[in-house]
Amino acid sequence: MARLRIGIVGATGYTGAELLRLLVGHADVELAVVTSRSGEGQPVAALFPWLRGHSQIQYCAPDSATLAKCDLVFFATPNGTAMHQAPALLKAGVRIVDLSADFRLRDPTAWKNWHGQEHACPELLARAVYGLPERNRDQIRKAELVANPGCYPTAISLGLLPFLKADVVDASGVIADAKSGVSGAGRKAEIGLLFSEAGESFKAYSASGHRHLPEIRQLLDEAAGHAVALTFVPHLVPMVRGIHATLYFRLKRKVDPHALLADFYSGEPFVDIMPAGAHPETRSVRGSNMCRIAIHQPQLSDQVVVLSVIDNLVKGGAGQAVQNMNLMFGLPEDRGLSTAALAP
Amino acid sequence: MARLRIGIVGATGYTGAELLRLLVGHADVELAVVTSRSGEGQPVAALFPWLRGHSQIQYCAPDSATLAKCDLVFFATPNGTAMHQAPALLKAGVRIVDLSADFRLRDPTAWKNWHGQEHACPELLARAVYGLPERNRDQIRKAELVANPGCYPTAISLGLLPFLKADVVDASGVIADAKSGVSGAGRKAEIGLLFSEAGESFKAYSASGHRHLPEIRQLLDEAAGHAVALTFVPHLVPMVRGIHATLYFRLKRKVDPHALLADFYSGEPFVDIMPAGAHPETRSVRGSNMCRIAIHQPQLSDQVVVLSVIDNLVKGGAGQAVQNMNLMFGLPEDRGLSTAALAP
Amino acid sequence: MARLRIGIVGATGYTGAELLRLLVGHADVELAVVTSRSGEGQPVAALFPWLRGHSQIQYCAPDSATLAKCDLVFFATPNGTAMHQAPALLKAGVRIVDLSADFRLRDPTAWKNWHGQEHACPELLARAVYGLPERNRDQIRKAELVANPGCYPTAISLGLLPFLKADVVDASGVIADAKSGVSGAGRKAEIGLLFSEAGESFKAYSASGHRHLPEIRQLLDEAAGHAVALTFVPHLVPMVRGIHATLYFRLKRKVDPHALLADFYSGEPFVDIMPAGAHPETRSVRGSNMCRIAIHQPQLSDQVVVLSVIDNLVKGGAGQAVQNMNLMFGLPEDRGLSTAALAP
Amino acid sequence: MARLRIGIVGATGYTGAELLRLLVGHADVELAVVTSRSGEGQPVAALFPWLRGHSQIQYCAPDSATLAKCDLVFFATPNGTAMHQAPALLKAGVRIVDLSADFRLRDPTAWKNWHGQEHACPELLARAVYGLPERNRDQIRKAELVANPGCYPTAISLGLLPFLKADVVDASGVIADAKSGVSGAGRKAEIGLLFSEAGESFKAYSASGHRHLPEIRQLLDEAAGHAVALTFVPHLVPMVRGIHATLYFRLKRKVDPHALLADFYSGEPFVDIMPAGAHPETRSVRGSNMCRIAIHQPQLSDQVVVLSVIDNLVKGGAGQAVQNMNLMFGLPEDRGLSTAALAP
Repeated sequence: MARLRIGIVGATGYTGAELLRLLVGHADVELAVVTSRSGEGQPVAALFPWLRGHSQIQYCAPDSATLAKCDLVFFATPNGTAMHQAPALLKAGVRIVDLSADFRLRDPTAWKNWHGQEHACPELLARAVYGLPERNRDQIRKAELVANPGCYPTAISLGLLPFLKADVVDASGVIADAKSGVSGAGRKAEIGLLFSEAGESFKAYSASGHRHLPEIRQLLDEAAGHAVALTFVPHLVPMVRGIHATLYFRLKRKVDPHALLADFYSGEPFVDIMPAGAHPETRSVRGSNMCRIAIHQPQLSDQVVVLSVIDNLVKGGAGQAVQNMNLMFGLPEDRGLSTAALAP
Repeated sequence: MARLRIGIVGATGYTGAELLRLLVGHADVELAVVTSRSGEGQPVAALFPWLRGHSQIQYCAPDSATLAKCDLVFFATPNGTAMHQAPALLKAGVRIVDLSADFRLRDPTAWKNWHGQEHACPELLARAVYGLPERNRDQIRKAELVANPGCYPTAISLGLLPFLKADVVDASGVIADAKSGVSGAGRKAEIGLLFSEAGESFKAYSASGHRHLPEIRQLLDEAAGHAVALTFVPHLVPMVRGIHATLYFRLKRKVDPHALLADFYSGEPFVDIMPAGAHPETRSVRGSNMCRIAIHQPQLSDQVVVLSVIDNLVKGGAGQAVQNMNLMFGLPEDRGLSTAALAP
Repeated sequence: MARLRIGIVGATGYTGAELLRLLVGHADVELAVVTSRSGEGQPVAALFPWLRGHSQIQYCAPDSATLAKCDLVFFATPNGTAMHQAPALLKAGVRIVDLSADFRLRDPTAWKNWHGQEHACPELLARAVYGLPERNRDQIRKAELVANPGCYPTAISLGLLPFLKADVVDASGVIADAKSGVSGAGRKAEIGLLFSEAGESFKAYSASGHRHLPEIRQLLDEAAGHAVALTFVPHLVPMVRGIHATLYFRLKRKVDPHALLADFYSGEPFVDIMPAGAHPETRSVRGSNMCRIAIHQPQLSDQVVVLSVIDNLVKGGAGQAVQNMNLMFGLPEDRGLSTAALAP
Repeated sequence: MARLRIGIVGATGYTGAELLRLLVGHADVELAVVTSRSGEGQPVAALFPWLRGHSQIQYCAPDSATLAKCDLVFFATPNGTAMHQAPALLKAGVRIVDLSADFRLRDPTAWKNWHGQEHACPELLARAVYGLPERNRDQIRKAELVANPGCYPTAISLGLLPFLKADVVDASGVIADAKSGVSGAGRKAEIGLLFSEAGESFKAYSASGHRHLPEIRQLLDEAAGHAVALTFVPHLVPMVRGIHATLYFRLKRKVDPHALLADFYSGEPFVDIMPAGAHPETRSVRGSNMCRIAIHQPQLSDQVVVLSVIDNLVKGGAGQAVQNMNLMFGLPEDRGLSTAALAP
């Protein structure tokens, strides 16, 4: 089979860099075009020296004609960009995986409320497939436009979906206390993200409402078939990579939660249910596309605690995007994603 | 006034080192005796070079005669040590602040269950005053034996007490998702505490039951006047100092939680209620005895989120011990504890 | 004695924040005016929450009339600011400690070469006293304008001065391999200073010429009485605070270097010569004004290795500025600077 | 070709874990036996959860019969172990790559001096090939016993060899100021390696003589053909992985050092010479077998500064061991070592 011609729009952030890292090691892919206005003419390896020797490709200016010759284009752009360029590319027959939030919400009104602008192509929202393979594998295979999930939504929903689908969750109060490494905030020159600000410290942020909240709600509500009263508080951890979601809910009927989890994810290549008593560490998935989950019932009561870890840039971003690409083109789902995590 | 003659038993761990740091800067204190079997004959500044130039005192072997000449002895020993030495010292008229868990639980059966041995002097449990000044200031003033609170219990209870005392908490489900820097685990040569294990990673631990749980339960139940269904999950943060407790509960009646908090702690020297919308960082209390608290009601519902930060070694350990000592001897409560936190 | 009326110009960076932290705990100082264009009207504690409860002062717009009523004004501004405001303040009788590089070089041509602009008041360069008390204590006492040393120059020169003054250094090749925490680069929104860039990594920077180089050269050459061939390579360490200088030179005649060091700094309040075989850690001076120095002669040859650590924001910045202020006003030199370092 | 049957002795440390990580992804290898007394019967993935799903192998007790059936055995044991087991295995026709220091020095007296015991099989020292492929590629291909280089020696020698071989170095004074992440010290329960000790701090150690010194000396002296006066000072960096060597020497004749380097390493798969002005970051080689080198001539003088970075566990340990194995069995040299580094 000819190698897939792949384009990346906006590959100067961490998600874009991670896409590059994964794709230079993917046997079925040819990196055809990587665009960036700011980086035009520069080798990607000049910006990300760890790619030296792995790719000689240079950034070019965004150009729809070039992108239109790709089999698939990844958008690794800030929110509000992909929605302007997707319609033309789709018309040209190019399939799209959008890593931004542009196509994650079905409801254009909700989108506008959280992003402060009208959605540019609301008619595409219904066509977009939410790219969580553990939930939507079959639709992803046929999708032209995949909305790649956010990092928090991935970690949280993988921990909760089995229980919501099985209808064993007391939906009157679900708590998602989530912790993220600093790379989750992106490669942006902001004071709050400086080493001297985020180092040797820990804090919550956006406790009164984070922009990932409506995406998580949509996911949980759809899985449950009814509204779930979710409280979501994100925190910033002094580490580069990793998300740890600690999820609290009550069982509304007796069930073996570990068996339920293990059964739900049986055969899934990228979800690992740990044995009873385990506590997954974020480093155990660093650089890998795995989600590791453990479960506790602190005092054998109906209170369940689920611990779910991912690498925010891999399963929470670029890795899941590659997994979606593999599905869309009939490749083995783990192609390019099979290396073990890097630890210690 | 003559300076207080102070002894420290077991000052080779982090809590002991922090006591030394605070006491060498305390105007009313003379460090009379610092014991350690392993360090005997060595200057404390050899073990902790940051004390060079601040104290020339040397470790001596534990000796009850020397300790008996002190006005007050701090125990900074592992659990199970103070309970053997306290009775004789109390008999000799020496007042005690125990930083271990030996005297924190009132119930000797609970103590035995969690510590795996019989308590050596159960009769003292009732005489011991739990050293949380914001709750027991008057008893502490007169106490002969103060059980200095644990770090998690301090951070958690300071965030919950005002609401429990006001009887506005739905006690059927309170969640304490707590995060601690690695120094909270002590200065112990354990693989899991190595830089290469705890660095660049995040995990929960003891999710099915942490040894601080009964202490927190006792605190909350007593404040509420009835049982509170608490779920407590501690996590390890790749930083040295700091605890962040994220506390979730529901209001059982309408109340302004920010006003209630501010009112409860009005005049307290070491609790700072932050303005609405704030997110306290652990570094904002690093090296200081302050507890900073903020409150959120994510969707203006009855769900309350309290964010509470302390330095585990100061307000969660040595600083609170000094605060207790100040109270016990009629000194200004903030003597030796008034420096600002060290940040960035 | 009335408390000194102190002004700070530009207190929104790390050096300014550290000045605030030290001065709110200084018994002889009244913080009279703190200026910042960007922060005007805001309490300093809103920007730096660790100052909550320690100062209620607000930033005001820079205003020469207000500053002119101060006894001393600190400039914690970017390079190129103090030189425009200093002349008028000096004329008004206000003494100045400038923490920027504006008055550190005696030669206006060198200044221009390294800073890319003409010096605004070259005539003041000769009047400025270089504020390294261990070298210029007497001149500092009488100075109207003190050029507070840079962080690298402080750590490096304190390790080399005794040997250069004693004329025992082979000046044909001195190596200063220096390592700094990230706060040394300031509170600037730059990609390279992000946690996700500087974390879990180590690198050299400006290996071909750092802006502190001429200042270090001037210091060393003056101490030696002749040119010293210095190679200076700075590195960035994934920590917030601290500088470690590793200094390599050869003895041109036999001498006991440890004795020489200890003798030179005998009686100095802020230089601690460690015993033979020691390796100072940067954390042993964190938050303190101390410089800790150790010395090694790896194979008992004429090759000497000096290890010198400071906190870049204290002895390498705000602390040394306060030490200079104390000297200028006849206060005890360690007033406000006597707390032990914060470790671990 | 049948897959190579590989054994690992002592795979419970970081080097062993890294060997496991690399070998589970190596297409030509079958992990036949992994020994550990302490871990006997336990799956390796229980100790290193990031291997879950990548290998089901369990630790077994060291057993020479089983090991004797391997094609190659790696020793990832503490110093002083391999020398006792190597002779029998070699006799059985098993090839060996020893990652400890047992076979690195040619001189048994030097070995005894630095390791405090007699060497158990001094006759093998001459047969052992020093496994630095950039120096000894051909001998490695035919070797039965490879002494895998230490991490510091690898980073330092790769930066110096080209200049020493070209005889352009003033050998009267070469300085190697090296900095290592904490994993370089191994997975040992030692106080000094705790997160709370090594975090947020920086220090030199073993400044008067590190156990890697004789190995580095032997390497440099052999390359130069005469004695090189080396001063080597290692430092501990608050990060998990990475070594940065900053190397200082003087040219004894005019030469273009960048061209010399680039020429020397032309065609080398695992040495990357960066463009002029660059500063390699340790993270740019994290998890990869690459050594990145840059060169500076600070003031265009004869003083040269070489910056050399490796991942201490990969090119400085397990990766180089796999590279050696590939050479020994005629596999492509980069087999199993071609993934890009993991950054950020």
